Amino acid sequence: MKNRVITISRQFGSGGRTIGKEVAEKLSIPCYDQELIEKIAEDTGLTAEFVSDHTENTLYSTILASAFNTYSATATQDYLWDIQVKIITKLAEEGPCVIVGRCADYILRDKADLLKVFIHADDESRAHRIVNLYGQKEDSPPKRLAKKDKRRAAYYRFYTDIEWGDVKNYHIALDSGKLGIEKCVDIITNLYKK
Amino acid sequence: MKNRVITISRQFGSGGRTIGKEVAEKLSIPCYDQELIEKIAEDTGLTAEFVSDHTENTLYSTILASAFNTYSATATQDYLWDIQVKIITKLAEEGPCVIVGRCADYILRDKADLLKVFIHADDESRAHRIVNLYGQKEDSPPKRLAKKDKRRAAYYRFYTDIEWGDVKNYHIALDSGKLGIEKCVDIITNLYKK
Repeated sequence: MKNRVITISRQFGSGGRTIGKEVAEKLSIPCYDQELIEKIAEDTGLTAEFVSDHTENTLYSTILASAFNTYSATATQDYLWDIQVKIITKLAEEGPCVIVGRCADYILRDKADLLKVFIHADDESRAHRIVNLYGQKEDSPPKRLAKKDKRRAAYYRFYTDIEWGDVKNYHIALDSGKLGIEKCVDIITNLYKK
Repeated sequence: MKNRVITISRQFGSGGRTIGKEVAEKLSIPCYDQELIEKIAEDTGLTAEFVSDHTENTLYSTILASAFNTYSATATQDYLWDIQVKIITKLAEEGPCVIVGRCADYILRDKADLLKVFIHADDESRAHRIVNLYGQKEDSPPKRLAKKDKRRAAYYRFYTDIEWGDVKNYHIALDSGKLGIEKCVDIITNLYKK
């Protein structure tokens, strides 16, 4: 029987990671987020930072890279994608869990009994959250939000041919800015339990 | 103080109307769906069927109509839109309620304390539902689904400049095919209560 897995896709700064952790804690199942980066790093001997920069948060536009034939950048990304697929598949085979980001909904589409969640929020809530969590950075909060979301969407589209954030791809999509983190956690936890 | 209003946008055949009715019943507040058509018909002296055909389910492509300068079709639609805005605004001013479809989320964006819901489902569940509810029609179920959704999306886009079904426009989006009608009703009812 396929394991039940919650996948959480999320806009940057929407609290998706926090929601994933809290849902997993309430359900007493593991949550994989940053841990995935570390597992890929472990498997490849690369640093976690390098893995992060070449997967979901890729610094390169895959399309631009292809156009300019920068072979090494795309080859690295494809190599890391293959490792990511293997690791996410293995984790889902081991038991029920929560997986945050990294196209897990697509990777596991036939391999687990999925509850596919999307978390988003208005720009103001997200800007407030990232300043509180990550402090001030070079870019203004709106620029950082747009840049991160653009990268996630491009990465997702490139490997899945599906539009990231398209409502039809998720069983439930929640606005954490309007509903609050705790309400989102409760709804997802209850859905999984029943 | 603004009244709390639940707006339900929905894919054709996703059970959004049923969900709206059941939520309203549980909360003991009115639900407006077909009633809106009847109110518009009453206000204008037109038949309910004519109103239905010239609003959300419009038979004319507004863009095509503009291109061919078929003035009377677009003028009728715009006239009905104005009446619709007035009626929906008045209902929201009267008290808390559920409103199904008809761009109510957009019309009431500054006029009520909204819980904006989107209901969707996979094509198979929707086809099954429309055959059970509405029986066999001329078009095959997939064709009917596509046609109805296309009309709703075009109508919504024309009057709101917003993409119908874009996850970011809703506080909660639910897949009624995966979650079931009753679960959707419970989630929305509980969200409104708290």
